[in-house]
Amino acid sequence: MKTLLLSQKEAMSLITMKDVVEIVEKNFRGMGEGNVINPTKVNLDLGETSPYPPYAGYMNAMPAYIGWENVAGIKWAGGALGKRKALGLPYISSMMFLVDPVTLQFKSVMDSAMITNYRTGAQSAVAMKYLTKKRNITFGLYGAGMQARTQVMAFAEIFTLNKIKVYDVYTPAAEKFKKDVAQYVKNGNIEICSVPRDVVEDCDAIVAVTQAQKPIVEDSWIRPKQVFFPMGSWQECTDEFILNADKIVVDHIGQCLHRGALKHVVSEGKFSEKDIYCTIGELVAGKKKLAYVEDRPAERTICIPIGTGAQDVAVGGVIYQRAIAKGIGGSFQFV
Amino acid sequence: MKTLLLSQKEAMSLITMKDVVEIVEKNFRGMGEGNVINPTKVNLDLGETSPYPPYAGYMNAMPAYIGWENVAGIKWAGGALGKRKALGLPYISSMMFLVDPVTLQFKSVMDSAMITNYRTGAQSAVAMKYLTKKRNITFGLYGAGMQARTQVMAFAEIFTLNKIKVYDVYTPAAEKFKKDVAQYVKNGNIEICSVPRDVVEDCDAIVAVTQAQKPIVEDSWIRPKQVFFPMGSWQECTDEFILNADKIVVDHIGQCLHRGALKHVVSEGKFSEKDIYCTIGELVAGKKKLAYVEDRPAERTICIPIGTGAQDVAVGGVIYQRAIAKGIGGSFQFV
Repeated sequence: MKTLLLSQKEAMSLITMKDVVEIVEKNFRGMGEGNVINPTKVNLDLGETSPYPPYAGYMNAMPAYIGWENVAGIKWAGGALGKRKALGLPYISSMMFLVDPVTLQFKSVMDSAMITNYRTGAQSAVAMKYLTKKRNITFGLYGAGMQARTQVMAFAEIFTLNKIKVYDVYTPAAEKFKKDVAQYVKNGNIEICSVPRDVVEDCDAIVAVTQAQKPIVEDSWIRPKQVFFPMGSWQECTDEFILNADKIVVDHIGQCLHRGALKHVVSEGKFSEKDIYCTIGELVAGKKKLAYVEDRPAERTICIPIGTGAQDVAVGGVIYQRAIAKGIGGSFQFV
Repeated sequence: MKTLLLSQKEAMSLITMKDVVEIVEKNFRGMGEGNVINPTKVNLDLGETSPYPPYAGYMNAMPAYIGWENVAGIKWAGGALGKRKALGLPYISSMMFLVDPVTLQFKSVMDSAMITNYRTGAQSAVAMKYLTKKRNITFGLYGAGMQARTQVMAFAEIFTLNKIKVYDVYTPAAEKFKKDVAQYVKNGNIEICSVPRDVVEDCDAIVAVTQAQKPIVEDSWIRPKQVFFPMGSWQECTDEFILNADKIVVDHIGQCLHRGALKHVVSEGKFSEKDIYCTIGELVAGKKKLAYVEDRPAERTICIPIGTGAQDVAVGGVIYQRAIAKGIGGSFQFV
């Protein structure tokens, strides 16, 4: 049997952000209903936090089974600074296998770095759809890299963005970002903030997509009715804000307890599974109820869609079907 | 950057069982010394034990970093009965990614089903080398499938096989096996046993490579100085034998506690990490001492090399180097 090979360019030519937003929502529903299976990812530390090997990187193995597509797959994705950055390569490197879950034959191998960026944007945008009644919002961003761009693209599929406020440690990056995403914002209304604190004022949703290794956002900055999405691998807000937040919603409990925003408070024994209100999947599937932020006027919400292989595999499955239908991609007989 | 693609046939044309035995030994040493990193594999259950999805299969994600080769990779491998078996496909389906651990660029995608079979044979053969002084042995086998063949091939690299005794639930499989592996045994001396108990008598090493879902080998059968290798995904010997064995050696503690021979006694609370004497890596690296079975004349030993991604990735790394040197394989530009 031949296996379909898809480059990043080919894969992304077959899907739009609108598609990805729809797939991600359907997939959250499947996770809530139990027909999307997503084991906790396993990390290979290549020096991101471990002393050996000393390469300032990591790779995460993220397998999943998607019931509504009847496909299984795995994304192997990671990031590295150091030499990778020096070569001018993007932070994320990622590939994916898809198999027929019945015969285990390998259907496809594809690049999945841009899929990762797209679904990461879609995850928070879809979550926000279930957290607020508003469809016109002011949007705050920490970080002005590739993932900030896909956040904007995804939010713009569901919301009218009245304004974007953005902060990046490297101001020229924020300036380039402003030009690149102007088309997604009403009247190109984008404000570059010179200090982190200025971002949050008036925002409905605030997304942090940074490589920051210490907290940026402080407890006192975030106001009632605001939703904060810390998407980074490290903790982008203070322990205090996490512990004082009124509702915390995540995409995957096992993963969120061991990576990203919650890792530190969990390791300190200050936070555990019982402090998570519900999953995004439970909200989308209607298995758990959470009032819209407008109806919880005193509450502050943190939402952490840290990223699941299920979202990648589901997007990959749709790309695969379209590639076959259109005859796009290469092929190789591995066995 | 182009990624090298290797079919099963191409990959296996670049390596011999002798090579694999050498790589596996070197890799055990690396695991013992700490420069081979092997996180516990993560299982995607496709109906092997879970009710949903109902496909009688599984896939294991097995990432690793190999210090002595400076390569990182992941094998995604599984097995399925049902439709896969009906199609006449081998039980194991497996592919592997290799990356440069510094830049995270994907160097290769290759089939790894036969690599899995080869390294599985080599793992127990190399372990036996460190457990006995003998280099002439009588070898017992439960199961006469592909993995039984690679066990024989690997043991024959280290030992003179005076005799093989084999049992398979399906006698014609044992008869075909006898013909296929005759070349690896002194005078083609292979005895097909009609009942499981007959295998163990006089054997130095007994390897179980079956798909049995309940114990075959009983406590009373195994004698002092014998080494039993239960290699299956399920428990191939009774709880009683595991609990009465004098020394238990494994390849990977985390994995062995949660899959295969030890899973049941661990889940019953009768066995824990402290009951494992040491790892094969610790033996090979000289970090732990265990007298040869001849010098422990009253003791019975169980050795469980359940299989690590590190062994696959290390073999894949050597195959990759040779493929590049010889210009073998296809290529594809994924990104």
